[in-house]
Amino acid sequence: MDELIERARMGQTRAVARLITQVENSETAASHIVPQLYAATGKAHIIGVTGAPGSGKSTLVNELAKALRQQDRRVGIIAVDPSSPFTGGALLGDRVRMRDLAGDKGIFIRSLASRGSLGGLSQATAVVIKVLDAAGFDSILVETVGAGQAEVDIASTAHTTLVIEAPGMGDDVQSIKAGILEIANILVVNKADRPGASRTVRALKTMLQLGETTMVRHHGRFMQTTAVTENESPQNQWPVPVLETVATESTGIAELVDQVLAHKTYLRSTNGWLEQEKVRSRREVEQLLQARFMARFQTIVSQDDRNQLITAIANREIDPYTAVADIFAHINNTG
Amino acid sequence: MDELIERARMGQTRAVARLITQVENSETAASHIVPQLYAATGKAHIIGVTGAPGSGKSTLVNELAKALRQQDRRVGIIAVDPSSPFTGGALLGDRVRMRDLAGDKGIFIRSLASRGSLGGLSQATAVVIKVLDAAGFDSILVETVGAGQAEVDIASTAHTTLVIEAPGMGDDVQSIKAGILEIANILVVNKADRPGASRTVRALKTMLQLGETTMVRHHGRFMQTTAVTENESPQNQWPVPVLETVATESTGIAELVDQVLAHKTYLRSTNGWLEQEKVRSRREVEQLLQARFMARFQTIVSQDDRNQLITAIANREIDPYTAVADIFAHINNTG
Repeated sequence: MDELIERARMGQTRAVARLITQVENSETAASHIVPQLYAATGKAHIIGVTGAPGSGKSTLVNELAKALRQQDRRVGIIAVDPSSPFTGGALLGDRVRMRDLAGDKGIFIRSLASRGSLGGLSQATAVVIKVLDAAGFDSILVETVGAGQAEVDIASTAHTTLVIEAPGMGDDVQSIKAGILEIANILVVNKADRPGASRTVRALKTMLQLGETTMVRHHGRFMQTTAVTENESPQNQWPVPVLETVATESTGIAELVDQVLAHKTYLRSTNGWLEQEKVRSRREVEQLLQARFMARFQTIVSQDDRNQLITAIANREIDPYTAVADIFAHINNTG
Repeated sequence: MDELIERARMGQTRAVARLITQVENSETAASHIVPQLYAATGKAHIIGVTGAPGSGKSTLVNELAKALRQQDRRVGIIAVDPSSPFTGGALLGDRVRMRDLAGDKGIFIRSLASRGSLGGLSQATAVVIKVLDAAGFDSILVETVGAGQAEVDIASTAHTTLVIEAPGMGDDVQSIKAGILEIANILVVNKADRPGASRTVRALKTMLQLGETTMVRHHGRFMQTTAVTENESPQNQWPVPVLETVATESTGIAELVDQVLAHKTYLRSTNGWLEQEKVRSRREVEQLLQARFMARFQTIVSQDDRNQLITAIANREIDPYTAVADIFAHINNTG
């Protein structure tokens, strides 16, 4: 195992792949491997890419990867597949398309599927990012479908978050999905050769302007004004660009890459980079603590006892607050 | 306080309102109040309504509330407002519109805004539902915008989940949002007088048919086949209807109410009702346990210490796994 870690750190692709298989399937492996890798992490630029199905997100990720490769960067791609079996199929198709990238040793591609466990997928993603980071990958693209928790997770995982729209999917400000502003550092209208592209661009720009009036952008992400602490100057602002691309024809990719790298430079030249590391670290500590606690709960209270308790609550024989108070005391009194 | 609980249980609107104000603002109040109310809960039909901004969701909720009222049911409406300040504004507008319902003592309306705390909003929603349930409200409509975690939460909170679409928002199967199938018991195409409505209905029906081939519907929700345990017959199926409504003109509302009540009858006549209570109870126990544990963590490890630790992790001085192992041992060794 330790030899495997050493070879992965030297960037050997097969060692990286084998290590990832171990960490994504076992919490124990992760807790053994991460401490040995962690000091070598923190260099990679983590780029989140999210967007609705049909926005052409995967093709765009392929193009981004190729363009970053042409600048001699080593590129990791992690496709995070939330629980729906439908997108599962779609993503699988995308993976097949990605095989044309896989001949290049400077590109590493991995799909992660939902494991259904508490914080499972986002924890697995965090660990895989660490392995790739320690193995010397310069850019790590994390792709996920824009739905549910996955989207929220990606924004707190990535340094730079791209939200991909397609024409007609957000025709007016009212129908643009809530939450996009909070997570996007760069907005991309892909399939920009389709009718309605300019209208979608205008709608997004209007939305950004509306945002300015009620919120402070904080290193390129909107936050409610109260959430920005005093010593962090609101002048530190990244103006969120709205870019047009046609990924299938490589149109607009060069400018997109420029903006992605400009955002990295921006974060590096301000306290934004470290700040995002802190956000990520805080979240990871909380998730790991909770996972440990829940594991302890499941060790101390048997599955039969848990099921009986749940049934008693569902039948109104005991209320959840009293039940939880009892369990909590029991867990803390068990050595 | 105990008198307030008694009056709320008798269904006095002002007591209900005051009790809700207390439980939504204080975990301590909730842990005092819920045990006294809990035995009186479990009767209300909890109906989740979710959909993208612009789908006309709020108008539809108003119409549903009126129609249920006409059947002499007491109706609670909880509008769950996720973090975005934009939808915040929109929902606020909707609340103003809802005032025309508020003169009726058989209707109780409450908005819940994000408190940003861990599991905050979904926990607050769960407590408010309990208060209304114990106060004798027959139907509780929980409305939330279809985005992020809120949508996932609503499905595990409600007995019956309605997903609202508008024409043009889901024109082909590819662009229909992942995850809808898992949560919807009833699909509604609102604004059905607009062009493209029949195409949206067709797309949704196609999607449902695609779902049948790879998944088993389980009490009206899709689950991956493996998730259905053996003693639960897959014959227990609720065929998800796709309904058309024009909420602004009250068109299609009667049929929608019929289907909502038919789903309730269906759940009651199978083991679906109890099963959903168990899912909800399990989730609530886990959330309350985690909240207690995190509160304990924050009591034992001071904010300064936590910040120092996060900074050390961000600076790669210590890895998160080792840090969490240390903290966890410390928490468990502190009486």
